[in-house]
Amino acid sequence: MDEIVNKVIKGEIKFYRIEEHVGNDVNIASEIRRKVLEKMRDISLKNIGNYSMDMNLTAKRNIENSIGCAQIPIGIAGPLKVTGDYIDEEVYIPLATTEGTLVASTNRGCTAITRSGGAKSKIIRDGITRAPALKVPDLEHAYKLISWVRENHQEIVKVFDDTDPFLNLINIEPWIVGRTVFLRFRANTYDAMGMNTVTRGARFACDFITQEQPYAKLISESGNVCVDKKPSAINWILGRGKTVISEVILKKEVVKDVLKTTPESIAELAYRKLFLGGAQALTLGFNAHVANIIAAIFLATGQDAAHITDSSMSIVTPEVTEDGDLYIAVTIPSLETGTFGGGTGLPTQSEALAIIGCQGPGDPPGAMGKRFAEIVAAAALAGDISLLSAQSALHLTGAHERLGRGHV
Amino acid sequence: MDEIVNKVIKGEIKFYRIEEHVGNDVNIASEIRRKVLEKMRDISLKNIGNYSMDMNLTAKRNIENSIGCAQIPIGIAGPLKVTGDYIDEEVYIPLATTEGTLVASTNRGCTAITRSGGAKSKIIRDGITRAPALKVPDLEHAYKLISWVRENHQEIVKVFDDTDPFLNLINIEPWIVGRTVFLRFRANTYDAMGMNTVTRGARFACDFITQEQPYAKLISESGNVCVDKKPSAINWILGRGKTVISEVILKKEVVKDVLKTTPESIAELAYRKLFLGGAQALTLGFNAHVANIIAAIFLATGQDAAHITDSSMSIVTPEVTEDGDLYIAVTIPSLETGTFGGGTGLPTQSEALAIIGCQGPGDPPGAMGKRFAEIVAAAALAGDISLLSAQSALHLTGAHERLGRGHV
Amino acid sequence: MDEIVNKVIKGEIKFYRIEEHVGNDVNIASEIRRKVLEKMRDISLKNIGNYSMDMNLTAKRNIENSIGCAQIPIGIAGPLKVTGDYIDEEVYIPLATTEGTLVASTNRGCTAITRSGGAKSKIIRDGITRAPALKVPDLEHAYKLISWVRENHQEIVKVFDDTDPFLNLINIEPWIVGRTVFLRFRANTYDAMGMNTVTRGARFACDFITQEQPYAKLISESGNVCVDKKPSAINWILGRGKTVISEVILKKEVVKDVLKTTPESIAELAYRKLFLGGAQALTLGFNAHVANIIAAIFLATGQDAAHITDSSMSIVTPEVTEDGDLYIAVTIPSLETGTFGGGTGLPTQSEALAIIGCQGPGDPPGAMGKRFAEIVAAAALAGDISLLSAQSALHLTGAHERLGRGHV
Amino acid sequence: MDEIVNKVIKGEIKFYRIEEHVGNDVNIASEIRRKVLEKMRDISLKNIGNYSMDMNLTAKRNIENSIGCAQIPIGIAGPLKVTGDYIDEEVYIPLATTEGTLVASTNRGCTAITRSGGAKSKIIRDGITRAPALKVPDLEHAYKLISWVRENHQEIVKVFDDTDPFLNLINIEPWIVGRTVFLRFRANTYDAMGMNTVTRGARFACDFITQEQPYAKLISESGNVCVDKKPSAINWILGRGKTVISEVILKKEVVKDVLKTTPESIAELAYRKLFLGGAQALTLGFNAHVANIIAAIFLATGQDAAHITDSSMSIVTPEVTEDGDLYIAVTIPSLETGTFGGGTGLPTQSEALAIIGCQGPGDPPGAMGKRFAEIVAAAALAGDISLLSAQSALHLTGAHERLGRGHV
Repeated sequence: MDEIVNKVIKGEIKFYRIEEHVGNDVNIASEIRRKVLEKMRDISLKNIGNYSMDMNLTAKRNIENSIGCAQIPIGIAGPLKVTGDYIDEEVYIPLATTEGTLVASTNRGCTAITRSGGAKSKIIRDGITRAPALKVPDLEHAYKLISWVRENHQEIVKVFDDTDPFLNLINIEPWIVGRTVFLRFRANTYDAMGMNTVTRGARFACDFITQEQPYAKLISESGNVCVDKKPSAINWILGRGKTVISEVILKKEVVKDVLKTTPESIAELAYRKLFLGGAQALTLGFNAHVANIIAAIFLATGQDAAHITDSSMSIVTPEVTEDGDLYIAVTIPSLETGTFGGGTGLPTQSEALAIIGCQGPGDPPGAMGKRFAEIVAAAALAGDISLLSAQSALHLTGAHERLGRGHV
Repeated sequence: MDEIVNKVIKGEIKFYRIEEHVGNDVNIASEIRRKVLEKMRDISLKNIGNYSMDMNLTAKRNIENSIGCAQIPIGIAGPLKVTGDYIDEEVYIPLATTEGTLVASTNRGCTAITRSGGAKSKIIRDGITRAPALKVPDLEHAYKLISWVRENHQEIVKVFDDTDPFLNLINIEPWIVGRTVFLRFRANTYDAMGMNTVTRGARFACDFITQEQPYAKLISESGNVCVDKKPSAINWILGRGKTVISEVILKKEVVKDVLKTTPESIAELAYRKLFLGGAQALTLGFNAHVANIIAAIFLATGQDAAHITDSSMSIVTPEVTEDGDLYIAVTIPSLETGTFGGGTGLPTQSEALAIIGCQGPGDPPGAMGKRFAEIVAAAALAGDISLLSAQSALHLTGAHERLGRGHV
Repeated sequence: MDEIVNKVIKGEIKFYRIEEHVGNDVNIASEIRRKVLEKMRDISLKNIGNYSMDMNLTAKRNIENSIGCAQIPIGIAGPLKVTGDYIDEEVYIPLATTEGTLVASTNRGCTAITRSGGAKSKIIRDGITRAPALKVPDLEHAYKLISWVRENHQEIVKVFDDTDPFLNLINIEPWIVGRTVFLRFRANTYDAMGMNTVTRGARFACDFITQEQPYAKLISESGNVCVDKKPSAINWILGRGKTVISEVILKKEVVKDVLKTTPESIAELAYRKLFLGGAQALTLGFNAHVANIIAAIFLATGQDAAHITDSSMSIVTPEVTEDGDLYIAVTIPSLETGTFGGGTGLPTQSEALAIIGCQGPGDPPGAMGKRFAEIVAAAALAGDISLLSAQSALHLTGAHERLGRGHV
Repeated sequence: MDEIVNKVIKGEIKFYRIEEHVGNDVNIASEIRRKVLEKMRDISLKNIGNYSMDMNLTAKRNIENSIGCAQIPIGIAGPLKVTGDYIDEEVYIPLATTEGTLVASTNRGCTAITRSGGAKSKIIRDGITRAPALKVPDLEHAYKLISWVRENHQEIVKVFDDTDPFLNLINIEPWIVGRTVFLRFRANTYDAMGMNTVTRGARFACDFITQEQPYAKLISESGNVCVDKKPSAINWILGRGKTVISEVILKKEVVKDVLKTTPESIAELAYRKLFLGGAQALTLGFNAHVANIIAAIFLATGQDAAHITDSSMSIVTPEVTEDGDLYIAVTIPSLETGTFGGGTGLPTQSEALAIIGCQGPGDPPGAMGKRFAEIVAAAALAGDISLLSAQSALHLTGAHERLGRGHV
């Protein structure tokens, strides 16, 4: 092994070709890469080397040039009572984070929700999207293209759907900008988040389209009207993945006892912070810190971390009811998640999904992915309830000080 | 231990109070929580239980109610030559991700960059922000308040800076919306990302301000004009954390040999995808997949994952030069990172920072944080170079198929 | 008359009730109001008093408390060759403006277009919208409401369409935010811009809906998801009024001779100004000055001036063709115009519409409104061609100096 | 005259060169152009020909190829009590519009305000902007450029200010996107809106800069970071022209008697319509119809109608006070107006300015422009108060029906 390490350092073996010299054993290759880096930098990577997965399996789907694993602590918030079309039970939420107080704060939100009878979640739209960009000679052909696509929808569906047994085209929305045409394919990918399948489907569909309408030239499989991994108005308005809402009515006594504040105080804070502040800053997100909870669940359960960008876009709406209680909801237009495929099958990720009963494909297909989304929305609601309460009671910094970080 | 497990299941011991029953040993408490969940759900959490950090230390700053750790595979892209004000060397980039092909693709971008002499990075703005919201009786008092703040800037600086040795107020930008006033404090926090310190500084400064100007009432320590963990126009335009740019000129031969495409093809793709597609979809980000690289580095190095939302906002500008080569740059307005504090001190995270020579505080203070930002921008550039090339050569799906996921 | 003037000044007759004292003659009432203001301010309003319309007619539909008219100079640009589905001829464009050089500049653009064979325009989407906001008890009822609306679409269509012979509901798009529901009604209003008819239709439809589903309470006839008279992402993405595109290929010789620049220079300018500048500033509009032309046509032809806000949102896409010529198009997603109703029937406005052959209702209904939109888009294209050319040749200020304003 | 008309129709005399054949008399040339159009289209343009200005004067600064004038009816709303730093009196607001009910509705808002003691207006920021785009070889030079600009600020000020006696540079804000640099010049232009002067100043300043730093190439005098005549986040956040706020507290009795609704009803409507609706639709403007009032005042007083796009961006904030009254304010970040230059000197426009005592330059310079802005904001407030009230009382359609248009 030392010999290979030295050769890599000397440049005689490429860093990313070490597998070829060790019988394609990725665990050994990972160790060699660690040793190379340790020597080059005079550092130790023993913690990164401490992992429990078989890198040979992981390397098939999830990683290249591996050196081991990052360990991110997981805390549990809950129990959180969630009622939806696919769940009606108390769950414990696994949150992978390094931000002190986040789990404790979310936990407090869970307590307030659960004590009030639980959060109600509902998915009001579903479908992952991919929008290739095509170039046509001129406007006339642009219009001809979108007309042809509309008229031949069934044939395109067939081509698209045939690329994968768990892929069903929902619709194709076209946009024309001069002589560039964007076709936004929206598909049901059931329990998988589905980026790869929808991309392949859209690619095959576009190959079919451009074959039949050869004046159209495919410029990019992704024309950024999808939109993948960028915050955007189009996902905000039309949704991507799952559009899910979760709500609860918190009795004023619960607000007082658990959250140490009042419905009125939260509502005023929300008005000035979320809506006036959000309006002045032009945020894509009128919420307190939904991204924190989304990120923590995503990391724990093997979701694509780059999707935090737009999956965390959301509107939180605290309202004082006629009875003086607090109605509060979170509306998430573009939650891109799955319980199957991607990183969800890795060892710790799979276990984290199991904690909330969301491991693997659903029966019927799609049911598990929807259950998961209903839970995520409820957890996001718990997180914002707690932080809005803390800020309305002006003890945010205090909490951080007490539970959180050291001198920084 | 089994006894405590049973008590927790019966609800006799609260889930988040287990530490009190096991001599405050968080490692044991974590094990108990795992056992509880395993029993309740009839599952195994052995991988989550396999971690190499001491949870007693982690629990002080980074997590509550811990059960163990998520393991996220780390791959290495590089070597990547980066030249900046704080670096001039080849580095290997640690990327924690579960998305197959991401590391391989970024690696290809690194090859193209390094073979072309390296990326040049520069930080053009620096300073983390926090913007409390205050309510005043009316417009007259709003104006009075911001005038007073301007006139008493030095005193406010003193109050603010005194809260932490590594905190220096840069400026305070005010916005008035009706009778709500937002004061956006921008501060230098050196090598730390600095959210907590700037929050504390802003809180103390506001306490001082509202004491002196008692008509002003602090509504929220964070008025969402900061903006923290939401994509926003204000961070895009005014920056938050570090505004950093990285660029390279890729010789057309390198584009051909390494990237299998041409500068012209990339430029046309960029025009239609990034700018027309981005314009039509109204994205906060005119890039291919900068969020992927940002997310992967953030997870590996202990950055706050919720900051991926706005740290990944960026504009990528590929341009064909007069010589027929490819000039390409990434401009990132709002990179919120640190090499010290938060999750950066955890075992694997600290090691990942060591791989790029970015562990801990800098000398002078701030130098390490800046070195890190210069590297991150260069890595993001590598990632986008590769994906734009792949898409311009129309073999994205193919690459995913070959290197990537299984049947999903 | 003097007696009434004095009574108004003394406050014995209300300013807006003068008609009651002069036999409801609005022309006389207007004169009295002018006299009152002249006396109060010691000024002369003789030019405002110089108008050729009968205020008694105008007061029925277009104005209250009238004092006369603003006179805004109209210049003519053209001839402009426009080809579309509703036009194939050269027209002269009436532009009401007070900005020196605007007509001359647009005229130059018309010359370049016409000499190149004319602009081709196409409407790719049509329908005015109105989105009332309804409050429901909770998420379950929100979902129930939108389900009911979907299931009872035909009945709602009947109620909606019955309110006006020239009103046809196209679709209803729902959004749920917590327990607030927005129903965006999109309708065909033929040659009229149609705001009032669609508002009335939506109101009656909502009355029907809330009668059948009494848990839903109408909060506002307009819930700002319409969106009327505010720039917005939703109109940008989904369109409002007419989505229309106009394009032309300008031969490089024409670019040189008429526009004094080159296709390459315009394309580079467009890239840095429209797309990089637009991206950095986050503009809703990637164009040079489409608003100038839209505004000038709107004022001349009696369109609603407040609609300039979003009717001018547009993307201009100059591209160098393989032959070295300039392809350029303007894409306008949300053009809210009509040739019938509103201010279009007033004397000078009606005459301005006659100049372009767009006066009154079309045959078949809708044809005139579409012809008008096709012309407007072509004129906007002419305007941007000229200004982009001028800026690319760096003689903008010069032109202003020469043709334009005095010492300011 | 008929001979010339015939020659123009035959194409022997160009449409825009008629002046040369009639001794440069623009009034006669206008008549000839009307006759040409009348013959070509078989129409009458007698109303357009009925105007009271001398086109020979107008043609020097405001129009080319003139044919006459559009007449737009002006109605008066008021009296409106406005208190600001430059005004403390009751004024009558001239509104040029063709939208029935607009004047009556605004008038009602004026009554409510005036009866409550008047609106208080304040300008909190002032300065028109222009942002040229420059191209530099690379990032290093981009940074060098903005550093040089910062270090040589005083010299640039001198060059800039020397171009006009009423032009003072306030600051220069730089943005770098890859190798494109935007320099946003902000200047005080006193009573003039100042677009032309700031453009000329920026042009001369850039000529000076590129002479001293010759690696920088001016690409466009306007790089769309200005932003002129496009809605944009940058104007929303940083302001352009005047940032002005106007507020009033309406007693609940006034809300009831004059506006036929309650503070609570308006506040709930505002929450769901302005903030939730605005958030869902992503509007640049959280208001009811500020654009209507802005447009009507702009047309009456000779402001640039294309500036309605961003001058109407605003946030309206109705809040129930502790006493049960209604606090309401409008915050307008980017009001681009003047009382001098542009179209303000034309006959009817000048008279309309005189009605509100805002004609011509101020003493001291700037005072008149500020007085005007204070009035405009108060009028916008009156407009939104009335429409929000009407919608909260659900009688919008009714009012339109009663006062407004005929069968369309």
